Amino acid sequence: MSSISGLVEDEISSFFESSPPLKNKEEVVAKLNQFIELNSSRQDGFNICLTGEKRRIVCVTSGGTTVPLEQRCVRYIDNFSSGNRGAASTENFVKAGYAVIFLYRRGTCQPYCRSLPDDPFLECFEFPDAKNIRVRESHSEAVKMAVMDQQAAVGEGRLLKLPFSTIYEYLQMLREMATALKDVGPCSMFYLAAAVSDFYVPWNSMTEHKIQSGSGPLDIRLAQVPKMISILRSNWAPKAFCVSFKLETDSKILIEKATKALQKYKVHAVVANELSTRKEEVVVVSSSGNVVVRRDSDKPESIVEDNLIRLIVDRHSTYIKENHT
Amino acid sequence: MSSISGLVEDEISSFFESSPPLKNKEEVVAKLNQFIELNSSRQDGFNICLTGEKRRIVCVTSGGTTVPLEQRCVRYIDNFSSGNRGAASTENFVKAGYAVIFLYRRGTCQPYCRSLPDDPFLECFEFPDAKNIRVRESHSEAVKMAVMDQQAAVGEGRLLKLPFSTIYEYLQMLREMATALKDVGPCSMFYLAAAVSDFYVPWNSMTEHKIQSGSGPLDIRLAQVPKMISILRSNWAPKAFCVSFKLETDSKILIEKATKALQKYKVHAVVANELSTRKEEVVVVSSSGNVVVRRDSDKPESIVEDNLIRLIVDRHSTYIKENHT
Repeated sequence: MSSISGLVEDEISSFFESSPPLKNKEEVVAKLNQFIELNSSRQDGFNICLTGEKRRIVCVTSGGTTVPLEQRCVRYIDNFSSGNRGAASTENFVKAGYAVIFLYRRGTCQPYCRSLPDDPFLECFEFPDAKNIRVRESHSEAVKMAVMDQQAAVGEGRLLKLPFSTIYEYLQMLREMATALKDVGPCSMFYLAAAVSDFYVPWNSMTEHKIQSGSGPLDIRLAQVPKMISILRSNWAPKAFCVSFKLETDSKILIEKATKALQKYKVHAVVANELSTRKEEVVVVSSSGNVVVRRDSDKPESIVEDNLIRLIVDRHSTYIKENHT
Repeated sequence: MSSISGLVEDEISSFFESSPPLKNKEEVVAKLNQFIELNSSRQDGFNICLTGEKRRIVCVTSGGTTVPLEQRCVRYIDNFSSGNRGAASTENFVKAGYAVIFLYRRGTCQPYCRSLPDDPFLECFEFPDAKNIRVRESHSEAVKMAVMDQQAAVGEGRLLKLPFSTIYEYLQMLREMATALKDVGPCSMFYLAAAVSDFYVPWNSMTEHKIQSGSGPLDIRLAQVPKMISILRSNWAPKAFCVSFKLETDSKILIEKATKALQKYKVHAVVANELSTRKEEVVVVSSSGNVVVRRDSDKPESIVEDNLIRLIVDRHSTYIKENHT
């Protein structure tokens, strides 16, 4: 188990103390506990389950976090992320028998909705008359998936979707989630695909009103967001299996940075993606070596997450066996 | 007619020269010209038309622009804007007989889709069996509007939707639009509801790769985006009726700032909104005085745009009469 220095711990405490509190905290915590309780009591023999194993629960984080530049926020810094990775991974985790808590940036790609066009209400439907709606043949599979498969996953209590926007919301929700999952132990997983801001303007030093455009340039000083993976691993949910992500635009430094993150945060695997090739391949970096995972290029429907989640689930199975008490 | 200084003109030229060029420029220009040609040749006696008047065409801009912080963009600064104002205004302009070019930020609210829930595919539909889709009673009006009304407007050639993301895309598209609308003269309108960035990082001084989070704070210097409304008014489309927007969080400075903008950019009206009350009321600031426009609070369905667009259309009618050649 990793331990973190007092300095980092102080930084983290002061981040949370100065954060605007989560508005719907009670509601979030109630939903989480209900979902975890429902799934922990299930033992329904999915093929991945070991004898006597409880249902596995994974928290998938998805999309970018925003950093407000003003307290009454008009401007903010955002991290690019469509949420496709998190959404596709969620579908694959559900298929593999997991219960998924999908912690996603509001407005980003939703599980089972990847195949919808950008403008679904303009393109997918027709009204032959004022009473009847029809799905256009060209989009029938996409709509069926978005409605039937998604509703089935939510209806069976296998998918809980929780939205965030700011870095403050995201990190507070992640903490609540880790706390709520503590008792699930090695059967829980954190799959941290969200693009979390590295820099932010501390709430207390932020201007209340919209920054005025006067004359001349604007200088902004951003502080580093404390890396919460350390405390997630050491304190919040030390027994959970933990996968983090590294995105770079420069392939030359990608594997080196991913390896450093593996060592520094003591996660079980780091998924390394390069911005331009991330839909074709990723590299899973772990203490047992680096594995390149590609999509099956001979199948047009195939996505890299199909093979990625298969590998991650295997690794998680090994981890549960080793940590079974 | 307004004129702009050589200094501002130089700033604007250098902004465009250093911008990454619009990727789909030919496609955008072709769509624009086709739409304008179709509507200019119509003279179909909507109640707002004066004798011999051609169909009015309004360009509604909507949503916030992004400012990339890296050339291969991972991080960017964004301006908060749901796009609700632009979407609702578009519906009202179509209803009033206008043809609308809706220049919107990708992912923001679409015309006729305001009443859909956040998660429409999870909430609006059901599949009683694998063949038939049904709209849930609770959302039938919202879905009908999003599909039927939207498709009707697009199908009749009354609505053209064009998306943007960055400030570079937005300003280049606005310039193309103004150029394409030049011949429509006083019957054209610019209704500039988009939240345009005031500050940006000039493309040439931008880092190519993702900014690394090392140790210590990050300092960013942002330059002012040249105000394009001046050149829109003076050079691009000097005969068009022009409405701009001012959003502030501090009500104390709002009207003063709006009045200054009216004088400085010589637009025909400035719609002043305060962030917290913008759905209840706005103030239309013009040389004929300030008018407070409220939603009809006794009708639950009423939105402020119903009354706002009525007023703007009236003002446009007067303008056309005065400038009829």
